[in-house]
Amino acid sequence: VTDAPRYALLAEGHFRPRDAKTAEGVLRYRPERAAAVIDSTRAGSTAQECVGCGGDVPVVADLDAAARAGANALLLGIAPQGGELPEAWRAIVRDALRRGFDVVGGLHQFLGDDPELAALAREHGARLIDVRRPPAGRPIAARRAAALNAHVVLTVGSDCNCGKMTTTFELERALVARGVRTAVVATGQTGILVAGGGVAVDAVVGDFAAGVVERMVIDAAENADVVVVEGQGALHHPGYSGVSLALLHGACPASMVLCHQEGRTLLRTGGVTDVQLPPLTAVRDAAETAAAWVRTARVVAVALDTSELDDDAARAACDARARELSVPATDPLRFGADAIADAVLAARERVSKTQDATAVTAIGQGRSR
Amino acid sequence: VTDAPRYALLAEGHFRPRDAKTAEGVLRYRPERAAAVIDSTRAGSTAQECVGCGGDVPVVADLDAAARAGANALLLGIAPQGGELPEAWRAIVRDALRRGFDVVGGLHQFLGDDPELAALAREHGARLIDVRRPPAGRPIAARRAAALNAHVVLTVGSDCNCGKMTTTFELERALVARGVRTAVVATGQTGILVAGGGVAVDAVVGDFAAGVVERMVIDAAENADVVVVEGQGALHHPGYSGVSLALLHGACPASMVLCHQEGRTLLRTGGVTDVQLPPLTAVRDAAETAAAWVRTARVVAVALDTSELDDDAARAACDARARELSVPATDPLRFGADAIADAVLAARERVSKTQDATAVTAIGQGRSR
Repeated sequence: VTDAPRYALLAEGHFRPRDAKTAEGVLRYRPERAAAVIDSTRAGSTAQECVGCGGDVPVVADLDAAARAGANALLLGIAPQGGELPEAWRAIVRDALRRGFDVVGGLHQFLGDDPELAALAREHGARLIDVRRPPAGRPIAARRAAALNAHVVLTVGSDCNCGKMTTTFELERALVARGVRTAVVATGQTGILVAGGGVAVDAVVGDFAAGVVERMVIDAAENADVVVVEGQGALHHPGYSGVSLALLHGACPASMVLCHQEGRTLLRTGGVTDVQLPPLTAVRDAAETAAAWVRTARVVAVALDTSELDDDAARAACDARARELSVPATDPLRFGADAIADAVLAARERVSKTQDATAVTAIGQGRSR
Repeated sequence: VTDAPRYALLAEGHFRPRDAKTAEGVLRYRPERAAAVIDSTRAGSTAQECVGCGGDVPVVADLDAAARAGANALLLGIAPQGGELPEAWRAIVRDALRRGFDVVGGLHQFLGDDPELAALAREHGARLIDVRRPPAGRPIAARRAAALNAHVVLTVGSDCNCGKMTTTFELERALVARGVRTAVVATGQTGILVAGGGVAVDAVVGDFAAGVVERMVIDAAENADVVVVEGQGALHHPGYSGVSLALLHGACPASMVLCHQEGRTLLRTGGVTDVQLPPLTAVRDAAETAAAWVRTARVVAVALDTSELDDDAARAACDARARELSVPATDPLRFGADAIADAVLAARERVSKTQDATAVTAIGQGRSR
């Protein structure tokens, strides 16, 4: 048991960009916690070579090699759809527990509730840490976050896994660099590991999802002038839209940053149904319409993932999206999040001037500009 | 333990219309299961006198009197916001278990997980039945229900507790009376008790709420030409909107029935925040817009709860809503659900004619008529 974990990041067969999302998030934002990545299909390369971040952190074939590279804990680095523990991983989790390694999981299937793994953990003095386990309590949201003085910003998206978490942390970094008192509310397993706290909203029972978010936003606003809330899913995603709306109505943002991966045309529905991604203007309209059912909010910037384009094409894509949506657009990883931070701070100025007016506005009718 | 329960319906201090929702639902739709209602503040009256249904079922002061009236099981008849077991009820639950009565609860706090109550139940051979306990499995919705041949109808509403469950069962009755093969998908604790099955969607973990609904709708469609899905919450309710959207996108209805209590002006947010109910046209627009993010659906009828109006005012209200929304409007309890059934069957005709066209429609943009 250690409080300074150095993780073996398990990403077996999945250590490619955007496929081992949790591993990638830790490598990008908490590299000091990463000892090695386990993916026998990429062993011998570095994290940087495989996913474009993480520098020299080695990719190794198994837990034994990760331990030799200094790992003292195991982190399950991907979150399979459905959230269950793949059978192939169980042996690796067992091996880690027998070494006394803590095992951190972000699955819906909680490691700590597995009798065999729980017994092994007890026997070897290791901990099973389920990042997605929801907190106690049954809060019901009631639009309380709309009354905060802090400016609340929510990242929303055209799909799952299109840059909401990354944009959240890049925006935080850009705001902090300007001296703005900024807090992040992490709402997914990777964000929680990076931020060191938060709640996986998609694992909370429906009635309390918005309430949990409301409570986190209110707490975060105590010592911050801008609260950046990590979004989840998409309002038009048939599987996850409820989580997205609960987040939107619990957080009551005044501003939203719209995240999108350039080039993606099909929604990630697990391959079951081919569903076209709607135009980005429609995604923007949906977010603003749904926000206004509880509190008026505007998309103030676009965050693009241009990782599949070259530099020239990426700049052109940002310019085109900025024109299309009439707000600044950038790829925060490629070009920095300054343009987004500027847009958020400008929106904060605008909203604070009209605060008294918006506070008494009845439920709105969405976009009207 | 009995499989033919005759319930003592616990509604202490709450046996008024719309306040003891679960008790009222059982009295209206499963009166053969109701032996007595416990509310010491109304003892001596009949159910009919207190809530307008349930006939001569007596209201009594305590469990002892309910047992003398023939009760052999206890049902918690209200669902307090937040879903926890009020301390005052614990003594009554204990008393019931000591008599060997099964105890049925619809709370978020599961009776079966309470060590004291679980031990008592074991000791006395009684069962603790938690209607809200979610099923095993982690299904992710993927718009599968949009491809069904059955016509799926969802009841949506302007608020919680405004007639969605009642409208569901009244519509079922009217359709069955016409010889239409009809199935109901119950999604709340009262609906589940009435229907004899279903899942309390608000108690399902966010990622799987739509998936659970999708699965129930597909199963229900196997032997039905019309599937009526009980809605929950409201899209503009800050606490419950996520559940409402998950239901909408899991069920993929083609038609919706819009439920509203005439005269209600404030949203039920537990008294924390005064939020005005939006105009009913805005509620309709929100439902159609949000539906279209996944599958086009239309509000085809309005179901009004006119219980606070006299007959003339009720008829006038229905006429006014029909004009306002350009669809039939009725109070299904007061005037029957025939007008709603007619509207649903007409919509079914329309949709089946254009089925091939809608099946390939990309995600829509909401209302455009």
